[in-house]
Amino acid sequence: MRKRGKKIEANLEYLRKLFIMPDSPDKFIEFGHELLEMIHDFFKEKGGIHSSITLPELSRIFNQTAVPSDPQLIKDVLYEIKTKVTAHSVKVGNPYYVGHMISAIPYFMILLEMIIAALNQNQVKIETAKASSFVERELVAWFHRLIFNKSESYYQKHIQNPKIALGNVTSDGTISNLTAFTVAREKAFPPDGDFAGVREEGVQRALKHYGYSRGVILVSARGHYSIKKAANLLGLGEENVVCIPADLNHRIDIDRLYQKVKSFRREKGRRRTKIVSIVGIAGTTETGNIDDLTRLGEIAREVGAYFHVDACWGGSALLVDEYSSSLKGIEKADSVSIDAHKLLYCPMAMGLILFRNERDLNTIKQTSQYVIRRDSVDTGRFTIEGSRPFACLKPWAALKIIGRQGYGLLFKSARENSKSLKEILERSGNFETLNTPELFILIYRFIPRAVREQIQEWRKQKKATRDKTRAKEIERNIRKVNHIINGLNIKLHKALRRDDTTFVSRTKLESTLYRPQNIVVLRAVLINPLTNNAILNEIVETQNRIGMKIWKEFESAYLKVATGNSVNP
Amino acid sequence: MRKRGKKIEANLEYLRKLFIMPDSPDKFIEFGHELLEMIHDFFKEKGGIHSSITLPELSRIFNQTAVPSDPQLIKDVLYEIKTKVTAHSVKVGNPYYVGHMISAIPYFMILLEMIIAALNQNQVKIETAKASSFVERELVAWFHRLIFNKSESYYQKHIQNPKIALGNVTSDGTISNLTAFTVAREKAFPPDGDFAGVREEGVQRALKHYGYSRGVILVSARGHYSIKKAANLLGLGEENVVCIPADLNHRIDIDRLYQKVKSFRREKGRRRTKIVSIVGIAGTTETGNIDDLTRLGEIAREVGAYFHVDACWGGSALLVDEYSSSLKGIEKADSVSIDAHKLLYCPMAMGLILFRNERDLNTIKQTSQYVIRRDSVDTGRFTIEGSRPFACLKPWAALKIIGRQGYGLLFKSARENSKSLKEILERSGNFETLNTPELFILIYRFIPRAVREQIQEWRKQKKATRDKTRAKEIERNIRKVNHIINGLNIKLHKALRRDDTTFVSRTKLESTLYRPQNIVVLRAVLINPLTNNAILNEIVETQNRIGMKIWKEFESAYLKVATGNSVNP
Repeated sequence: MRKRGKKIEANLEYLRKLFIMPDSPDKFIEFGHELLEMIHDFFKEKGGIHSSITLPELSRIFNQTAVPSDPQLIKDVLYEIKTKVTAHSVKVGNPYYVGHMISAIPYFMILLEMIIAALNQNQVKIETAKASSFVERELVAWFHRLIFNKSESYYQKHIQNPKIALGNVTSDGTISNLTAFTVAREKAFPPDGDFAGVREEGVQRALKHYGYSRGVILVSARGHYSIKKAANLLGLGEENVVCIPADLNHRIDIDRLYQKVKSFRREKGRRRTKIVSIVGIAGTTETGNIDDLTRLGEIAREVGAYFHVDACWGGSALLVDEYSSSLKGIEKADSVSIDAHKLLYCPMAMGLILFRNERDLNTIKQTSQYVIRRDSVDTGRFTIEGSRPFACLKPWAALKIIGRQGYGLLFKSARENSKSLKEILERSGNFETLNTPELFILIYRFIPRAVREQIQEWRKQKKATRDKTRAKEIERNIRKVNHIINGLNIKLHKALRRDDTTFVSRTKLESTLYRPQNIVVLRAVLINPLTNNAILNEIVETQNRIGMKIWKEFESAYLKVATGNSVNP
Repeated sequence: MRKRGKKIEANLEYLRKLFIMPDSPDKFIEFGHELLEMIHDFFKEKGGIHSSITLPELSRIFNQTAVPSDPQLIKDVLYEIKTKVTAHSVKVGNPYYVGHMISAIPYFMILLEMIIAALNQNQVKIETAKASSFVERELVAWFHRLIFNKSESYYQKHIQNPKIALGNVTSDGTISNLTAFTVAREKAFPPDGDFAGVREEGVQRALKHYGYSRGVILVSARGHYSIKKAANLLGLGEENVVCIPADLNHRIDIDRLYQKVKSFRREKGRRRTKIVSIVGIAGTTETGNIDDLTRLGEIAREVGAYFHVDACWGGSALLVDEYSSSLKGIEKADSVSIDAHKLLYCPMAMGLILFRNERDLNTIKQTSQYVIRRDSVDTGRFTIEGSRPFACLKPWAALKIIGRQGYGLLFKSARENSKSLKEILERSGNFETLNTPELFILIYRFIPRAVREQIQEWRKQKKATRDKTRAKEIERNIRKVNHIINGLNIKLHKALRRDDTTFVSRTKLESTLYRPQNIVVLRAVLINPLTNNAILNEIVETQNRIGMKIWKEFESAYLKVATGNSVNP
């Protein structure tokens, strides 16, 4: 390892030179070259996806407890980044990494980041962001149109209308959802007579004025945790996120939702519940499935509730006609959130929140004397964040470079990979798939063929028998075996992390064939266009091989259930 | 102008190639070169700071109402960015641009952005951010130590302790402040008996359980608008931000604060007020002045209130010993927010929020099955945002490259520029400076010498007279003239925007010599190390020249006040 860089004395002339692009850009190019090679190495490097270094080892590398005092040479710090940081970063762009909603990104994104940093605009204010404010509005209009599809004249009128905002560019989906629920809360408890509105007077007076005991957000059990976070932040309380069970397709159970809504309407007096928002999910984080947005929209309209669609994952699929039918009903939403760092293949992180009604964001509009004056055209009047980067350049340029056409091909590749993985897993025999992928996410578990068949047999028997004691006994067996298989899959996942040549993630779900039992599942997100059939075969082979090895530790426990039992023929 | 790029057909092979760094990095380098030149041109270009294009003209450029369908060549899109976006961006790095908390940035930041984009880590989770999670914790510990200065063993123990968080990296100061007040609210209304805490049950039940009618945040009139925003979001209500007047040094009036706090303590029964947080400001947005943090900390401790310091602007000054006395008392805070895109000279945007008590962020800790599991070490358990970029690499590397020493020199240059500008303005005779810069912000107004002297004379006379009617008359005159000068400065600011060779910002303040009258002021933020004495002279000369020209339109109105009046000798 190279020795730590020599100490240098700080002097203002040297520092000033750091602040200007060197007159001849040679030095910049030189560093750029080095960096490029470093990045290239990072992607080419054989070996693990997560690097083999342990977390305690990393703790010992990054244990400098005080701010550095003496300046160091740029090249020394870049070298330090290379050896300490880049070498131990996660290769999220690796085609064998199919575990999270992250993928390889197009290399032009790196160029766009250079432009964004060099311009260093602050989107909060027109005085610090001139053309970039207009780019942002254009991008927002594009997505508004994709979702709500109002008339050309509507967009001509509003695309650059500074009096309103069709939506915001946010730092991520969590802030997008928070923005939506802030508006929803505002609309649930607006100014009325001598009540100045929840924004001015707070949640307690709002509930009191309107005669409610609480405000709730209704969402399926598949809802993202940011929804609870928003309920906490907004002072509604996490317990007032009412989780409706998901059906076997991981979609909100519409009947259960409707019953719940009706039960709220029957409440009388001071115990009444205000529905702040009904939420639909367009691409659940865990399974990628889509709620029945049409029915949700109808119910929301029927009861006069705000309807938000969390489409952080799936919203961008609207770029491709073929997905418009599965997302049908999204146009009924009051607001829709979409993440650019997911299906738009942008780097971390950028969200969008779009509002059907162009006046809705005015409910949270703010002004101040020194920035975003009342009569200003500043974008910052409408956002939750203050200072914001010119991040919108990335999806704006990507949509031009890739085009709807190109995204169509990328999604087609993702869909085919999802289908392939399902087939490969089912062919293998030792896996059970647990959802029908709608948006490139497949969940499944490792379960040796004999066990899978035994459970199938039990289920058949249970259906056939009229003997209740017998049925209960079978159910108990299934539960016991599932418990064993849960342990097996947790252990398998940990072993796969150690093996580190492939990566899928892991979660636990209640809405499967075995409900209400929670089932541990492996989760593959198949959006990397560099992932292909051969790679998927290798991934499954690895899981099968390691899984069968681990199974030995679990087999006897299984056999005890299976054989200590007259069910077995 | 070049013709719009030729249409190209999307094909998957072409798209896949976008996703990998080309085998030979030539193409990347080629684009990199072009970009570099474009960026270089942007900075070198003569002409206006904001570009002369009007907002309506920009509206017509960015008026494409539908998402592009066909893919375009990267070079065509880069060309479009160059001509439409870069050409009409604000030159925030120009040394004549001294109007906002934004400056030139060191060019190595662009290299760091390349690394961040290429690695594309998502800080939410260790499975998507390995070494980068450790970098973040190290950076957070550095700032924690700068502020709270606990023992070496404390930092050894906690710097990489995944069970707690000493603070968060956020998307900006607004989210930092929001995080602080979320924790403050949680600590104001914690779980108690059968009350599960405000997080679980919401604001209304929290107030009811603890027997309060409202929760308030106390801050000076100089407080940033993000504090009101947070009070709205958190369900406390904007009207429950209690603004305490600032003194002539733009610091919170401690006596008035103390009176207010005591008045809350005298409240009885159901009308009681809970103090959620007392806020100190370390570098007000408008004037850069610093509250008396020591006294604020004492009062907060006395009444058992949470104490937050908004040091988004000034916190980084702690890097340099010479500022530690003016920031004294900051170590008494429960939390401190600092922005990296301000005095750390990082690109937009990144904030930090630090908590004195390493357990405080546990009050908002969240978990989910698919990400940030309960037993995980994921950073996302503690943050308001979900997906977050590896932004912390920028200040982390900058602190190594520039060092505390280097920041010392940068701040020295900023301090000298502030002092110089004050002197130049005062020497000119036609300006009145209105604060003593502590952290590189100077406010002042254009006021022709004769008018300034007339007001001085009136003030002297008013002090001398015992005739109340006379005193009132003089006061009325001063008010009238100030009103005229307000109009003059608004008009001057607009004319300067049109001239566009220099830039300062404008605001309106109540705490000046002329309180309670609001005074329109020009505001210079002097942190660009490329700004120098000669440039400051030019800026003042331009303002004086244009100001004197505009003054002609205002002079007769002034003379009417000044001469229609026996005051004038």
